[in-house]
Amino acid sequence: MSKYTIGIDFGTLSGRAVIVDVADGREIAAATYEYANAVMDDRLPDGTPLGPDWALQDPADYLQVLETTIPKVIAEAGVRADDVIGIAIDFTACTMLPTTDDGTPLCFLDEWSSNPHAWVKLWKHHAAQPEANEINRIAAERGEDFLARYGGKISSEWMLAKCWQILDEAPDVYENADRLLEAADWVIWQLTGNERRNSCTAGYKAVWSKADGYPNKEFLKALAPGLANLVEEKLSTDIYPLGVNAGGLVPEWAGQLGLKEGTAVAVANVDAHVAVPACTVVEPGKMVMIMGTSICHMVCGTESKIVPGMCGVVEDGILPGLFGFEAGQSAVGDIFAWFVENCLPASYEREAQARGISVHVLLTEKAAKLTPGESGLLALDWWNGNRSVLVDTDLTGVLLGMTLTTKPEEIYRALIEATAYGTATIVNTFAANGVPIDEIYCCGGLAAKNAMLMQIYADVTGRPMRISASEQTPALGSAMHAAVAAGKAAGGYDTIQDAAAKMARVKEEQYFPIAENQAIYAELLAEYTKLHDYFGRGENDVMKRLKGIKERAHHEKVAR
Amino acid sequence: MSKYTIGIDFGTLSGRAVIVDVADGREIAAATYEYANAVMDDRLPDGTPLGPDWALQDPADYLQVLETTIPKVIAEAGVRADDVIGIAIDFTACTMLPTTDDGTPLCFLDEWSSNPHAWVKLWKHHAAQPEANEINRIAAERGEDFLARYGGKISSEWMLAKCWQILDEAPDVYENADRLLEAADWVIWQLTGNERRNSCTAGYKAVWSKADGYPNKEFLKALAPGLANLVEEKLSTDIYPLGVNAGGLVPEWAGQLGLKEGTAVAVANVDAHVAVPACTVVEPGKMVMIMGTSICHMVCGTESKIVPGMCGVVEDGILPGLFGFEAGQSAVGDIFAWFVENCLPASYEREAQARGISVHVLLTEKAAKLTPGESGLLALDWWNGNRSVLVDTDLTGVLLGMTLTTKPEEIYRALIEATAYGTATIVNTFAANGVPIDEIYCCGGLAAKNAMLMQIYADVTGRPMRISASEQTPALGSAMHAAVAAGKAAGGYDTIQDAAAKMARVKEEQYFPIAENQAIYAELLAEYTKLHDYFGRGENDVMKRLKGIKERAHHEKVAR
Repeated sequence: MSKYTIGIDFGTLSGRAVIVDVADGREIAAATYEYANAVMDDRLPDGTPLGPDWALQDPADYLQVLETTIPKVIAEAGVRADDVIGIAIDFTACTMLPTTDDGTPLCFLDEWSSNPHAWVKLWKHHAAQPEANEINRIAAERGEDFLARYGGKISSEWMLAKCWQILDEAPDVYENADRLLEAADWVIWQLTGNERRNSCTAGYKAVWSKADGYPNKEFLKALAPGLANLVEEKLSTDIYPLGVNAGGLVPEWAGQLGLKEGTAVAVANVDAHVAVPACTVVEPGKMVMIMGTSICHMVCGTESKIVPGMCGVVEDGILPGLFGFEAGQSAVGDIFAWFVENCLPASYEREAQARGISVHVLLTEKAAKLTPGESGLLALDWWNGNRSVLVDTDLTGVLLGMTLTTKPEEIYRALIEATAYGTATIVNTFAANGVPIDEIYCCGGLAAKNAMLMQIYADVTGRPMRISASEQTPALGSAMHAAVAAGKAAGGYDTIQDAAAKMARVKEEQYFPIAENQAIYAELLAEYTKLHDYFGRGENDVMKRLKGIKERAHHEKVAR
Repeated sequence: MSKYTIGIDFGTLSGRAVIVDVADGREIAAATYEYANAVMDDRLPDGTPLGPDWALQDPADYLQVLETTIPKVIAEAGVRADDVIGIAIDFTACTMLPTTDDGTPLCFLDEWSSNPHAWVKLWKHHAAQPEANEINRIAAERGEDFLARYGGKISSEWMLAKCWQILDEAPDVYENADRLLEAADWVIWQLTGNERRNSCTAGYKAVWSKADGYPNKEFLKALAPGLANLVEEKLSTDIYPLGVNAGGLVPEWAGQLGLKEGTAVAVANVDAHVAVPACTVVEPGKMVMIMGTSICHMVCGTESKIVPGMCGVVEDGILPGLFGFEAGQSAVGDIFAWFVENCLPASYEREAQARGISVHVLLTEKAAKLTPGESGLLALDWWNGNRSVLVDTDLTGVLLGMTLTTKPEEIYRALIEATAYGTATIVNTFAANGVPIDEIYCCGGLAAKNAMLMQIYADVTGRPMRISASEQTPALGSAMHAAVAAGKAAGGYDTIQDAAAKMARVKEEQYFPIAENQAIYAELLAEYTKLHDYFGRGENDVMKRLKGIKERAHHEKVAR
């Protein structure tokens, strides 16, 4: 009798569930729920305005994902509840919220629902940059060891900066938040009744390590006296490794979802990290990239290494027994979407409509006719700041080389190339710092959809590129972890390696670097690097000064 | 009995005639002819392909302007041929062509019509950059005095580089060109039967001066032995001051145009320079800007001064008795047009259509709601290179500061602001080098149409701005010169000052700098200057290297 697991991937705009045959990883059925409140970056549902750089979500949307997609995939797959041996989730991170001690989000309570700080701060909420700057300044001043594990900088996207922003701007919310936790761990708490936090988000986003735990109380106190007891009072020191069973499904959820009470529920994982074994990668030297609105880069090594600007190195953070390294580009597909929404001329839209194709397909078709270097354009891919290797959200985009004959498809290709240079910068930084990368495995929408983009990435990085066979790689990875949480005895697996050997696959097609393209892109990458360092390493901080002027102009306008 | 003159302004895409009452400058009637072959930058009418950076025109279009617009304005004005006392023209420059010794353009002859070099090289033909580079290198090496009169650099747009390109690439065309001359002078030749070249194009475009004549034979020989006799064989040393009668209208043209045989025809003028007195400006300290696809800046001074990157200083070049200084921005309106054609999203086009307004009006309306600095964007306005103060056609555009929330109107405004920074750079360079500028007088389509743009220019330059009352300022300026060519005895005037006093006017409305905007724009201009110098003065020649890679890519693609 076949056994099944369900993996649920909580993305930036939607949640996707997939039900998988544990024997071979075959995806039997899938379902998606688009978050009703999507990303709130302008105002709350009740109209309360948000400041610049805010990005919130509604936890009710996460529950809707469970309620709508799980029954749907079970029904569609036509499997019995008895044969579903486990479920697991993965999530964007750090995506965090304040709750009461019974796990109720503060934003669900009338008292707090108009306070932006009571809602979920999405990973790309960037308004905690002042706090992040102070964290980095004080940590450097005190010589805190943990800094080196995070490329020398703690991001404004992470747990500590976001918690501190709440304390700074809404001390009453902070006071009344019994728990501050990842939305990922909150969902598991809902399903199991247990607040069991996972080692991946703790390690990569909350500056926790297996060896040293969290930053100590003296450091937190040095940030702000009110933060001194953050760890004991609002976080948790009970951190569980990936693949562990967080406890069985509680009766109410079992009933609602049509699953058996007590079904194994794995501790949560991060959407990116869970994809590594789902791409078949269970060894060092193979980088996995999740290519979507942003890119997350993961690679494992046998030793801890200090790599400038990486997002983190966490022991057992991706695969047991290895040091997991993470890096990232904070906007990739988002830049292409921005371009199509804000810069695509009507004539192109009409041409795509007339031919019944998407504008991205049309642009890609036109851009693919260009050869490397032919546009004369060069961009810096910093529309949403730079995560790796500069760790600076105040950097902004650049496009250079325009003439009166520059065409939209040339700009589109230049933007794609810029994101490839961004990846190459990360790959080369790892390689130069003792973390070799021989091959790149990709998953996510961009990898599956755009052959031109994949060839550009192969040419620019000089590495062969493979693509996950699954179109729901993170969800499949979660389903694999669900099988591990269930264990071999229940029809699953005892290790993620065993699960990967049976359940994961990559496509036949590969992209190999083409020598003549590589030569031209090496020249262009050198130009990118020169501008990257000029604008990104302090020689000309024009982007920060422009942001400062922009903020002043914004404040003065509002004040008038 | 009223007397009339006709001024004809030959622009980049069309020719416009206006018939004017000599007594008060009142424009009685106007007519426009759009050039059938417009700007050829891709191929000749017979399909012969053109290289990158080429821009040609068809001299037949110029004749069509005369044939269609002059009879039309006479008919519309209902005046008698006897009362039209003079005609004059102004033209883009350096816009030059090869002809036989009877003035027949080589491109009119079957033998040559498929050779791109036989056609008119438009002012913005930029393919003679290699020749310009050599001219500058050799002139600097030899310590040629004339260099200083032209801001230290001879442009690829000018006569010498264009002549040399013909010799380099089409020696047979060069050989068979009995004359190489400005299209402006060619039209006068057609109308009068006399090849009488004007001092304005000779001075600003052919490196001629009243005191020293052309560059000498040794210099020309040092460029290329074949160029040694350029002046004697193909140019002319008979140079006539502005406002002089080039000879009466020949019978054939008089018949065709419906004018009297022998009607005074002034020597040609440049479209920009002719506008200065038409804006009422006949004294130092007042800059005149012609604001259209590009901007031409003119100001007079009492002494010759060396101003870095100016296009030229010519004694009597604009107004008799003064030194006329010229500077320029090689793309302004062209950049906004590029943006609208290549970057304007369909939703904006639909909104403009639904409201029955042009997309420029829509964008301006949205951009006007922004305050200075609010977009966080900064651009370098080098889509067509930089004429002043860097004199480098190989520079390209930059846009910096984009985020995922950047809107089209923010980019549009940033492009307008960038062109204002370009003007401020020119104004400040003149002022710093002994040519004071107290007020700015504007004419051209942009000045008349866009109040937001005018306010931005006032705020950025810190100078009050006035606008010509005429919508055909260059044509009016030509009509004024026609009145001078006719002379007082015939019902005209003896000097351009007298003509300006009676015939020229500016609008009542003025734009004054707003102190709080000025303060923010001073900060932004400082950022512009930093990037301007970084990319434009050799610190990072990325634009040139990208152009080199682009050319290689282009060649390799064609070779395949």
